[in-house]
Amino acid sequence: MPRKTDARDRAIATTERLFRIQGYTATGLTQILEESGSPKGSFYFHFPRGKIQLAEEAIDQYVGRRISVLRTISANTPGDARRFIGELFHTFAAEMVASDFQYGCLMQNLANELPALDPELTARVARGFVDSTEIVVQHFRQCGFGPGRASATAASLVAALEGARTIARLERTPAIFDALARVSVQSWGAPEQPAES
Amino acid sequence: MPRKTDARDRAIATTERLFRIQGYTATGLTQILEESGSPKGSFYFHFPRGKIQLAEEAIDQYVGRRISVLRTISANTPGDARRFIGELFHTFAAEMVASDFQYGCLMQNLANELPALDPELTARVARGFVDSTEIVVQHFRQCGFGPGRASATAASLVAALEGARTIARLERTPAIFDALARVSVQSWGAPEQPAES
Repeated sequence: MPRKTDARDRAIATTERLFRIQGYTATGLTQILEESGSPKGSFYFHFPRGKIQLAEEAIDQYVGRRISVLRTISANTPGDARRFIGELFHTFAAEMVASDFQYGCLMQNLANELPALDPELTARVARGFVDSTEIVVQHFRQCGFGPGRASATAASLVAALEGARTIARLERTPAIFDALARVSVQSWGAPEQPAES
Repeated sequence: MPRKTDARDRAIATTERLFRIQGYTATGLTQILEESGSPKGSFYFHFPRGKIQLAEEAIDQYVGRRISVLRTISANTPGDARRFIGELFHTFAAEMVASDFQYGCLMQNLANELPALDPELTARVARGFVDSTEIVVQHFRQCGFGPGRASATAASLVAALEGARTIARLERTPAIFDALARVSVQSWGAPEQPAES
C-alpha cells in the first residue's frame, strides 16, 4: 500500500517534469493531477494554495538537487578548476542525453516566463541561481582564484550551462557541451597568476 | 491615416514583445489583439492561421534582425575576434538594459516551451539558431580560426549569450555580460596558433 506522502511526492515530481518540458503556463493542474495519478481531494489537502505552492516546492527541490550535484562535483575535483569545469559540462550533458533532450532547466524556464506574471516565484528562482552559483564560486576560491575572478568564472559557467541546455534541446545532441569544454576548460580553469585579482 | 499594413506589423511586433516577456503559452490572441489595437476582422484577414502564423512571422522577423545585428558587428570588427566577442556581449547587454531587463530571447523562450507541443515551430527556431550562428562561425573563419575552433567558439558564444540573458533578467543588471567578457574575450578570441585545427 502506498505511503500517504507518495501522492504528494508524485505531484511535485510531475510538476517539475512538466515545467521542464513545456514551462509554467502550459502546465495546468488538470494535467498534473492526471499524470501524477493524484486524487483531487488529497491534492488540495497537500497543496491548499494549488499551482503556486506546487511551483514553490518544485523550485525548492530542484535547487536543492542542483546544489547537491554541484557539491558532489566540487568534492570529486578538489583544488582542480579544470577538472571541475569539465565534469560540470559532462554531467549536464549526460543528464540531457538521459532524458533524450526532453528536459530543459526548470529555473531557466520559469525565469523566462514569470518575471511579469509572478514576481514572488521569480524571486525564488533568482535566489536558487544565487545559492547554487555560490557553490561554484567557493570551488574556484578553493582553487586559489581571487574573489573577482572566482565570481566572474562561476557566473559565466552557469550562463554557458543554461544556454547550452537550450541549444541541446533543439539540436538533440550534446555537441554544444563538447564545444564549450573545448574552448573553456583550459582557459577558464587556468591556475591563478600571482598578479591577478 | 494609418496604412493598411500597420495593423499587421503591429500584431507581429506585439506578439514578439509578449513572447519575449512571458513566452508562447501565456500569450493568447486576445491579449495580442488588445495590445496591438488590431480589429478582429482585419486580424483574421492578415493571419488566417491565427497564433501559429503570428508565431512563424515573429520568429522569422526576430531571426532576420538577429542575423542583421551579427553581420553589423562582424563588419565593424573585421578580422578581430576579440573585439567581435567584446562587441557581442556589449550589444546584447545594452539591449537588455534598454528594455529594463523585461525582454528575454524569443528563440530561447520558444525553444524551451515548444519541443513537445509544436515540433514545426520548434524546428523553425532551431533553424534560426543555425542560420544566425553561421554568421559568427564565418567571422571567426575570417579571423583565421580553423573550422573546428570557429564552430566550437561560435556555438559556445551563442550558448553563453542566451544563458546570460536569462541570468540578467533575474539579476536586473548587465553584470553577467561583464563577467563573460572578463573570462572569455582574451581566451576565446586569441589569435590562432599554427598547430591548432
